[in-house]
Amino acid sequence: MALRGAPVEITLIDRRNHHLFQPLLYQVATAALAPSEIAWPVRHLMRGRDDVTTLLGEVVGVDAAAKQVRLRDGELIPYDTLVVATGARHAYFGHDDWAPFAPGLKMLEDAVAVRGRILMAFEEAEREPDPAKRAALLTFVVIGAGPTGVELAGTIAEIAHKSLKGEFRRIDTTQARVVLVEAGDRVLPAFERKLSDYALRALERLGVEVELGRAVSACGPDGVTFGSTTLPAKVIIWAAGVQASPAAAWLGAAADKAGRVKLAPDLTIAGQPDVFVIGDTATLDAWEGRPVPGIAPAAKQQGKHVADTIRRRLAGDRTPRAFRYRHDGSLATIGKRAAVVDLGALQLTGWPAWWVWGLVHIYFLIGLRNRLAVALNWLWVYASGDRGARLITRVEDAL
Amino acid sequence: MALRGAPVEITLIDRRNHHLFQPLLYQVATAALAPSEIAWPVRHLMRGRDDVTTLLGEVVGVDAAAKQVRLRDGELIPYDTLVVATGARHAYFGHDDWAPFAPGLKMLEDAVAVRGRILMAFEEAEREPDPAKRAALLTFVVIGAGPTGVELAGTIAEIAHKSLKGEFRRIDTTQARVVLVEAGDRVLPAFERKLSDYALRALERLGVEVELGRAVSACGPDGVTFGSTTLPAKVIIWAAGVQASPAAAWLGAAADKAGRVKLAPDLTIAGQPDVFVIGDTATLDAWEGRPVPGIAPAAKQQGKHVADTIRRRLAGDRTPRAFRYRHDGSLATIGKRAAVVDLGALQLTGWPAWWVWGLVHIYFLIGLRNRLAVALNWLWVYASGDRGARLITRVEDAL
Repeated sequence: MALRGAPVEITLIDRRNHHLFQPLLYQVATAALAPSEIAWPVRHLMRGRDDVTTLLGEVVGVDAAAKQVRLRDGELIPYDTLVVATGARHAYFGHDDWAPFAPGLKMLEDAVAVRGRILMAFEEAEREPDPAKRAALLTFVVIGAGPTGVELAGTIAEIAHKSLKGEFRRIDTTQARVVLVEAGDRVLPAFERKLSDYALRALERLGVEVELGRAVSACGPDGVTFGSTTLPAKVIIWAAGVQASPAAAWLGAAADKAGRVKLAPDLTIAGQPDVFVIGDTATLDAWEGRPVPGIAPAAKQQGKHVADTIRRRLAGDRTPRAFRYRHDGSLATIGKRAAVVDLGALQLTGWPAWWVWGLVHIYFLIGLRNRLAVALNWLWVYASGDRGARLITRVEDAL
Repeated sequence: MALRGAPVEITLIDRRNHHLFQPLLYQVATAALAPSEIAWPVRHLMRGRDDVTTLLGEVVGVDAAAKQVRLRDGELIPYDTLVVATGARHAYFGHDDWAPFAPGLKMLEDAVAVRGRILMAFEEAEREPDPAKRAALLTFVVIGAGPTGVELAGTIAEIAHKSLKGEFRRIDTTQARVVLVEAGDRVLPAFERKLSDYALRALERLGVEVELGRAVSACGPDGVTFGSTTLPAKVIIWAAGVQASPAAAWLGAAADKAGRVKLAPDLTIAGQPDVFVIGDTATLDAWEGRPVPGIAPAAKQQGKHVADTIRRRLAGDRTPRAFRYRHDGSLATIGKRAAVVDLGALQLTGWPAWWVWGLVHIYFLIGLRNRLAVALNWLWVYASGDRGARLITRVEDAL
């Protein structure tokens, strides 16, 4: 978007046909929003841009010498300047065998699958005669207490204690346990401590059991183990770690433990001045000496910096300029009436924070239609407690 | 719903957790609506009904002697009175091997898969250098010209010629071919002939090629054969035939060619007065000597008749009363500004018919939230031509 009007030809390659607004993905997983309300076809976003060719394709490698990107079907796309923004997946710290039992949230399909698991657990519990098995079906474990984990845990508690109330005949959904497990010593570790403390109390008010200082040592079909405790649970959701895309391997670049490309200060790779890497797949200490956080505003600032650099180079100025991250603030919700907003000087909690959170997220959605649809759904959930997207759809039934 | 307040205990069993408004399923397949906008959790619909226990489970048999329904996991559900309303799937007239190449539309998953195929064909065409292969990717064949087939063909033509215009750089989507193949001699055979003729002209105005009197003899990965013609096409959608659920086999009842249970005039099975069968899985000549049509209003009238019969029996009156179907009318749309409405005495075409069609469909949706959401989406599509749910989601990527 920041290259609009520049004398360049842009090829935009993505393996998905849609841009996804990840901050609201958990709301798809918790049945408040439909997938299409937080995603928009990339091609449609670029429809007025004759300078942009959109291709649906999966990048599997980069030939830096020949200046070509290689797609899975063998097609080679030439470039003068390459911008890699291929993101990250959730990661299990070397325990990929946990993935089937503790799915994470990065794509729309993940969210729809998690939504199905949560809703299906209540359905199975309603038909389960064995009390121990029923208890395991009604125990929901969220691993990781960053914003996604906190939001998920708070919302699952609301679903069990409020949305589903009165709908079951054999089980009491208000007896469901929601357990949030965090290896660190507080929830929302990126926020000021007093906001972490507020979030902890808000979670506990919603009935969430928060287990701090507990590193998970196993996830399996019957539950999760942390410390010496094994908790029988059928629904485990992973919100703990990320692994960068293979961009470092494609580019032969140095990477950190999580696979993030280590950048030069101008967002290029050492020795490859025409290759920029931005967003969650890169790392750079450009936030007053600390690493740039893996959040959308940081990626957008980097995109703007790269576009500025390209424009300056086209004007003949190839002096590298260092990227500096400017932190505008951190936001997280805990259920439908509590939130924390940390703007540095200004810190908010409770319903004022919830409204700021809601307005900011609607503002950053793309397109009037999605803004209207999300606002309508939120007002509906807020007023009625009902969730409109409570669908269990089964992958194996699909043609 | 019609048994509300009657002195009965109701167990409502469904293998899906949601009630689906099938008349708008094609709008999910064509990216205008999200799945959750035309579906509603059964359990939620029954939340205020203490007399109703909702179970998510798949019926696999009925033991009429013991008066028990058998679920897939072995659970037996006893009954005094059984009402079977298990519907129908699309069917290929004995050619089930066509299914992978010509999916039909009966469930949400079908619609999401068809949506993905339609959108993916344009994406692949954009990257296909071979002109013949590109033409096959841009040829969309719909088989069967009942309301679903006509609505699909009209809407795919609008997507190609309007919604996607200006979004591709290598292909011209307005060159896409949409072919509607029908074995009979007119489209919308259940309507008055002059409405069929209008629908044919409306389809042709949208650029749909209509092939009448053409029975399909083969569907495969490369295209469809009808008569002596083989048309290379990558997207084929089946809207031609249905097959009833296995209810007749469960009940040991007589069935017609499509597997529909043959009913006694009071909607029971001969010799089993406590078993009612209604909707698409049954057949009865109760429309002035003709079979009751396989449409939602007919199933609703039957449901009402069964509830009345149960109430009368509880009051001591076991005299069988014959069900009579009352036809209120037929409606179909062809794209976003044309429709046909056949109310017998009153017949409408064009935009007045489109508004009647739209208002009737919004009225019959369940729940204020869904009505608002669908109305908002339709106004959006109507005004802008954009379709908000243009997502290609891949089953194999899901966890």
